[in-house]
Amino acid sequence: MKFEVLILGNSSATPMYGRHPTSQVINFNEQLFLIDCGEGTQMQLFRYGVKSNRINHIFISHLHGDHYLGLVGLLSSLHLMGRKADLHLYGPPALEEIIEIQFKHSATVLNYNLLFHPTNPNKPEVIFAAPALKVTSFPLKHRIPCTGFRFDEGKRAATLNAEAVERLNIPTPYLRLLKKGIDYADADGKLYRAEDLTYPAPKSRSYAYCSDTMVFDDYLSNIQNVDLLYHEATFMHDMLDRAKDTFHTTAQQAGEVAKQVGAQKLLLGHYSARYKDLQPLLEESKSVFISTELSEEGSWYAVGYKQ
Amino acid sequence: MKFEVLILGNSSATPMYGRHPTSQVINFNEQLFLIDCGEGTQMQLFRYGVKSNRINHIFISHLHGDHYLGLVGLLSSLHLMGRKADLHLYGPPALEEIIEIQFKHSATVLNYNLLFHPTNPNKPEVIFAAPALKVTSFPLKHRIPCTGFRFDEGKRAATLNAEAVERLNIPTPYLRLLKKGIDYADADGKLYRAEDLTYPAPKSRSYAYCSDTMVFDDYLSNIQNVDLLYHEATFMHDMLDRAKDTFHTTAQQAGEVAKQVGAQKLLLGHYSARYKDLQPLLEESKSVFISTELSEEGSWYAVGYKQ
Repeated sequence: MKFEVLILGNSSATPMYGRHPTSQVINFNEQLFLIDCGEGTQMQLFRYGVKSNRINHIFISHLHGDHYLGLVGLLSSLHLMGRKADLHLYGPPALEEIIEIQFKHSATVLNYNLLFHPTNPNKPEVIFAAPALKVTSFPLKHRIPCTGFRFDEGKRAATLNAEAVERLNIPTPYLRLLKKGIDYADADGKLYRAEDLTYPAPKSRSYAYCSDTMVFDDYLSNIQNVDLLYHEATFMHDMLDRAKDTFHTTAQQAGEVAKQVGAQKLLLGHYSARYKDLQPLLEESKSVFISTELSEEGSWYAVGYKQ
Repeated sequence: MKFEVLILGNSSATPMYGRHPTSQVINFNEQLFLIDCGEGTQMQLFRYGVKSNRINHIFISHLHGDHYLGLVGLLSSLHLMGRKADLHLYGPPALEEIIEIQFKHSATVLNYNLLFHPTNPNKPEVIFAAPALKVTSFPLKHRIPCTGFRFDEGKRAATLNAEAVERLNIPTPYLRLLKKGIDYADADGKLYRAEDLTYPAPKSRSYAYCSDTMVFDDYLSNIQNVDLLYHEATFMHDMLDRAKDTFHTTAQQAGEVAKQVGAQKLLLGHYSARYKDLQPLLEESKSVFISTELSEEGSWYAVGYKQ
């Protein structure tokens, strides 16, 4: 079952060197979720072949322009392209007012329902819950109210031992039951144990998104043991003072956080416009946490498979 | 003296095929003016090597998102890049409110003065006046209030007949006066007539921007005899009904307008997402007005020099 992240933008506030403001797509089992929607997101979706109309849930972390200024354009284009399906939007309460005033003056009445769900910047809340996936928002610490988002896969089914099942000629209707752990008895009453015909269910996977934030204690409990951690790394550590002043994180700190919470892999992003070459940020983070990767626009990153 | 237009975006509302929402830069004698500021304009400026901080005047035609959604991002980036110089913004009155609410929620206090000048959608008004250049806004007819913009070069100076001036050894301080039409008398009282030492001043040039609009009578008087006319051509003429319904123009109509007002050259833009290949729009307009060109993103177009 697919669980991947596509980076559409990894720039901090001032887009430079062809990098774009923050946005990313989560593909969970062919359901698409958008996290943040910086200016140009709809063009980036088009560039990377993602049909924007397949997105049904959009999560906005905070109201700095580089995280949401592409939203009204995307919502308008979905309208113009004839969308009918409900669209769920999660973000800071004031986002609703910002959208409404713009639709009022452009005389836009959407063809579809835009369902707005305000996020809570003060405590973690489950904002999306289905058997296969749960999304939680949790407080980050930035200059204005901001939340991160954590995606947790539900309990996974066991996978069949295809060779054994075929050899024993187990009828197809029973295969689904075996995967759920239910034993199979044949016409002669002979019992086949599910655990002998399946491999154990893979561990459920998890992804966390932390941008923008400075490092602080409270959020660490919300990102424990994630398989993939996307964390902002706006500055190099020689600019720690500047990072603190602006409520951002250094690459070294991002590595330290990943190590501390037991993440499997760390993906850096939200690069400052002062860095054209990003290798030094990567090396700085790797010196603390080896499984670091630089996020690159247009690349998909799998959540939770061992490298 | 330079008078050129750079197309940053020529797409109508839904950006497709790598085309961007509307925006363009006017370079008048190395002063830069921005007309409209669709989503992604700041990235387009960067892509085409235009230093955004050199722009001191921004004109917004109307409040459909594809004409202004890049504005808050651009204003923010100018702030982050340390701009100090005043920036003048001209647009529909409600634009001020749209900007203010977003800066309020992002806790942004600009480093520079943003001076807002509301445009009048009901009658033509001179909104910028300097000896060398005048900018006039004038009403267009769209679904919401909208204005076009006309740029008129001031009276141009005569150019010196360099060969004659050198031969007669006219002292340098008098050359400037000659260009203004003031005759020169040498120490012996011999008179040299300015008109004999100069070529006549070139005709003053003009540019008009018309997007978005349907064709109607009133605006034609405001775009008479322009050297370069940028006119929207959202649809082909077989979609005239759709053009009328949405208050847009067809390529054929754009050609008819250019012919009617005596434009020297017509530049088409604001192409609908339904047209990947734009040649048919060009041919349709050329069948009426031969001096038509398709605007292309990243290309500069000279105002007013005969082809």
